[in-house]
Amino acid sequence: MKFASYQYGHHISYGVVQGDRISDLGGQFEHYPDLKSFLAHGVFGHLADKLSQCHQFSCDEVTFLPVIPNPGKIFCVGMNYAQKRQEFGENNPAPTLFVRFADSQVGHRQPVIKPFYSKQFDYEGELAVVIGRSGHHIAVQDALNYVAGYSCYMDGSARDWQHAWFTAGKNWRQTGAFGPWLVSADEITDPHQLTLMTWFNGQQVQQDSTANMVHKIPELIHYISTFSELNPGDVIITGSPGGVGKKRNPPLFLQPGDLIEVEISQIGRLSNRVIDDDQVGVSSVIAQPMLSVS
Amino acid sequence: MKFASYQYGHHISYGVVQGDRISDLGGQFEHYPDLKSFLAHGVFGHLADKLSQCHQFSCDEVTFLPVIPNPGKIFCVGMNYAQKRQEFGENNPAPTLFVRFADSQVGHRQPVIKPFYSKQFDYEGELAVVIGRSGHHIAVQDALNYVAGYSCYMDGSARDWQHAWFTAGKNWRQTGAFGPWLVSADEITDPHQLTLMTWFNGQQVQQDSTANMVHKIPELIHYISTFSELNPGDVIITGSPGGVGKKRNPPLFLQPGDLIEVEISQIGRLSNRVIDDDQVGVSSVIAQPMLSVS
Repeated sequence: MKFASYQYGHHISYGVVQGDRISDLGGQFEHYPDLKSFLAHGVFGHLADKLSQCHQFSCDEVTFLPVIPNPGKIFCVGMNYAQKRQEFGENNPAPTLFVRFADSQVGHRQPVIKPFYSKQFDYEGELAVVIGRSGHHIAVQDALNYVAGYSCYMDGSARDWQHAWFTAGKNWRQTGAFGPWLVSADEITDPHQLTLMTWFNGQQVQQDSTANMVHKIPELIHYISTFSELNPGDVIITGSPGGVGKKRNPPLFLQPGDLIEVEISQIGRLSNRVIDDDQVGVSSVIAQPMLSVS
Repeated sequence: MKFASYQYGHHISYGVVQGDRISDLGGQFEHYPDLKSFLAHGVFGHLADKLSQCHQFSCDEVTFLPVIPNPGKIFCVGMNYAQKRQEFGENNPAPTLFVRFADSQVGHRQPVIKPFYSKQFDYEGELAVVIGRSGHHIAVQDALNYVAGYSCYMDGSARDWQHAWFTAGKNWRQTGAFGPWLVSADEITDPHQLTLMTWFNGQQVQQDSTANMVHKIPELIHYISTFSELNPGDVIITGSPGGVGKKRNPPLFLQPGDLIEVEISQIGRLSNRVIDDDQVGVSSVIAQPMLSVS
């Protein structure tokens, strides 16, 4: 089953997507105000029977939100495909984990904002894992039981702000596109048999299989849950394959007007147009990457 | 004025600390359920007059919570004192920014938990900056106007889990001690004229002046707010001086029973006893740092 979060007028809700139709669950489950709390309570039983009672929307009528608009934790895994590691000369075998904040996200079909202060705004197509149950010290063999479902993620990255660490490159507002929806885990037999493709203005720029992840999803859940509790709605973004813009010759960066899309088999195609940042200039000082030690 | 967050019985609240007494503000300001929302609304006017109407506690009657138990964002600055950079051979001049999650924190006088799976659990004494106003693209010269106040932070670090990146070393539960209280910004004339000391079982192991920070607080607020909006209750932990346990000869790591204290002039002394982790063993698999690429 496909679950999406969206806005309809001033009403924020979530529902089940079937073809071009959305059955609104938010109106049916008043005790679960968002998809995160719905997933936490696991009220899936007889859900299919209830859909006909739900208010119906067309996908074109709603504004998609990030699949989980309010995750407690977003862990991002860097350097997790062999080709990407090769491109970036990465030799450290340990998982590279960095963090995105929820306010850096944007939904399907919503504009991704090219940071005004970046000249190297790059795409990364990734598989997102959404956690459905709370857990600490989760064993590898039990890990997939903690997954609510999967989605696509476009981890927009200001390369010229990654500096010493990724935090500054990965947290600009509306740079992390998350959607179009969550496909529940029961429909994905093996999350490591999916094909991931990224399209830049309709041209394919990334293609790999999730079979080629260095640290597989059960290992990542085990590793992360050893030091930090995972909770429903938490998100693990599992890393980008090779083929990112920074390592192309010539480099290929996102500019206003570009269409960036991440497609994963059995899930769908996340589609976002890049726009310019029109909300800067409020400061009298031009921000510059801070590259000198005083 | 000194503000603390605490628990009294089952009641979670916050108040003003004067000597050994706490005047309970939570009971007076029902619309501001926590210190974060109180700071956001800046209702400081005539506060001194109101304190006599507040319920009074002794500091010994309450359980201190992290100064801000629920920050939206906690930015941690690494490698921000010259001596620490030298100890770790750090040459990259850009700010090292990593993230703590709120559930890794603990209050004054509460036990810090030594992670079961770490043999190198280290201390770092730091100055914490608490944000009081929302801002994006904050200019350097205006930055200190966004600060609500200052506190001490003990950034407990599992060095053997820092691996490629710090996320895994810095997010174990009850490893980030934050307190004892926030001293409001109006009482600290210059946050770069404070003396920071760390005490390990009563022996001084770190001492430096906040004058020696590489990236000063206004620069950090400017830099961070360029890529991510800062909001009331957000925390910036400004980095540790040299003298951490990992770089001593012989190394000096925290063990159950140790007392670790961070003292900053004009603020106070944050004091925490280290205990063993008794909540592990729920998994059938022993977690190990993941150091081989499959």
